[in-house]
Amino acid sequence: MNLKEYIKDKREAVDSFFHSYFGKPGKPSVLQEAMLYSLFAGGKRIRPVLALASYEACGGNPADIVPYASTLELIHTYSLIHDDLPSMDNDDLRRGKPTSHKIYGEAIAILAGDALLTEAFRILSDPSLSGRVQEANLLRALREVAVASGLNGMVAGQAQDILSENAEPDHETLEFIHMRKTASLIRASVMMGPILFGSGMDVLDALSEYGRNIGLAFQVVDDILDIEGNTEEIGKPVGSDERANKMTYPSLYGIEKSKQIAKELIAAALSSVSSFSPGADPLREIANYLLSRRS
Amino acid sequence: MNLKEYIKDKREAVDSFFHSYFGKPGKPSVLQEAMLYSLFAGGKRIRPVLALASYEACGGNPADIVPYASTLELIHTYSLIHDDLPSMDNDDLRRGKPTSHKIYGEAIAILAGDALLTEAFRILSDPSLSGRVQEANLLRALREVAVASGLNGMVAGQAQDILSENAEPDHETLEFIHMRKTASLIRASVMMGPILFGSGMDVLDALSEYGRNIGLAFQVVDDILDIEGNTEEIGKPVGSDERANKMTYPSLYGIEKSKQIAKELIAAALSSVSSFSPGADPLREIANYLLSRRS
Repeated sequence: MNLKEYIKDKREAVDSFFHSYFGKPGKPSVLQEAMLYSLFAGGKRIRPVLALASYEACGGNPADIVPYASTLELIHTYSLIHDDLPSMDNDDLRRGKPTSHKIYGEAIAILAGDALLTEAFRILSDPSLSGRVQEANLLRALREVAVASGLNGMVAGQAQDILSENAEPDHETLEFIHMRKTASLIRASVMMGPILFGSGMDVLDALSEYGRNIGLAFQVVDDILDIEGNTEEIGKPVGSDERANKMTYPSLYGIEKSKQIAKELIAAALSSVSSFSPGADPLREIANYLLSRRS
Repeated sequence: MNLKEYIKDKREAVDSFFHSYFGKPGKPSVLQEAMLYSLFAGGKRIRPVLALASYEACGGNPADIVPYASTLELIHTYSLIHDDLPSMDNDDLRRGKPTSHKIYGEAIAILAGDALLTEAFRILSDPSLSGRVQEANLLRALREVAVASGLNGMVAGQAQDILSENAEPDHETLEFIHMRKTASLIRASVMMGPILFGSGMDVLDALSEYGRNIGLAFQVVDDILDIEGNTEEIGKPVGSDERANKMTYPSLYGIEKSKQIAKELIAAALSSVSSFSPGADPLREIANYLLSRRS
């Protein structure tokens, strides 16, 4: 299979859903404009692609769950807008473009994030957007996403990340931050497939393991790219973690050991789906891509 | 019936759910502390009480839906924390106490709001918290709450409110703001009862009308109290709307006409539930209370 084509195809389906869902500009128009600005600022749609690929790995047709997979990008985008705020990471650039508050001001940026998060749950609560998913499974997928994003998930990770700036790195805190800030939503993205399809416990367990491992690997690679990448490719200044005294894998283990950890996590992810049919090939390819990516 | 007792009883049920749900302090503890600080800063729990009373009006036992009704207070509290931020309304006091960002800083205040919103949807997606509600009805109630809170609801109202500061008031914009910023979540609170109970279309329509009318009346009375109330009772300095050049009913219609409008809205609300059994008495009493309240 051609992963580049696969991702492009899925990304177009997701973007097309966004265009239809946010088609009619509401009032006040600047709110929706701010939401769409960040949504179309160059995100790779990796979380929706993971949900679609895992649904396919379970035997489903990805086209049936595009609206629900898309919600993962809404939640990811909301988290970036809020993380970039002056009171948080105070970033002026994201993917090479000015961040939301630099263009729309802090108030609209905060509200655009709030609306993205809320619309994600609105979409996840609408069975009519697919017609192919059982209501009980939709409710369960929504719950998985909410758990991954909330008080014991992404928000806790971001809070701990901010509180840990300038602190001496230790393994427990580092893993806490990375698991919650990044891995939990990636794992929930992977879990959306089997949950919406109604798969059995063995499939759920295997994909949970896959999701947890690629999720953590994703953040470790991010940490490495912040040191070894180049500004143009990663869309923000290299070395920003170090300047902000962020707790990262390289800051604790050095760069070589961090690369080794990422490699082992991806190997573990691949191993947990080794018994899956060729329908899981996209998941396998994505795992390898996450390790080798340059941006 | 004794409305004061009724509200006290329901408030205790809601608070008791919060204590059990947020019982074990997670990590980082300051995040949960900030959430609980705002949650227990003196809110009257009027939205949960409305949901419980409307469930009762439909023939249900309010005790069965306390967790779901409580989510309305989580969403209301998140909106207050974000609205009070320096980049929004920049309020130092709320209900006579320092606002979240004055105590925890802006970053934790924003994240506490994000977590409150997300946990609301997590609770609304968990049928095991009641065991008495059909999953399809829970999904539908969640959707109603999300629509009321998101891009075409509360967030739009707050965005338009901020964008309209210092603008010449006009009826269309004023109603847009009040309907979305306040009335939509109050209407959704009332709708939660019949939706979770599985009531028929006539009941849904009547309660939708009741909710819309008391919701708008609630905000008109708020506008009036900001002029005629006293600082101690309303918990923030009197006249803050006027100083911030907010678009309010009194600023457009004057205080007497605004009182007349509030009275008519409450009369319309009462009329829409006039055919309901005595089970709807709490809804009737609440409507009257909203008109006469001093805080």
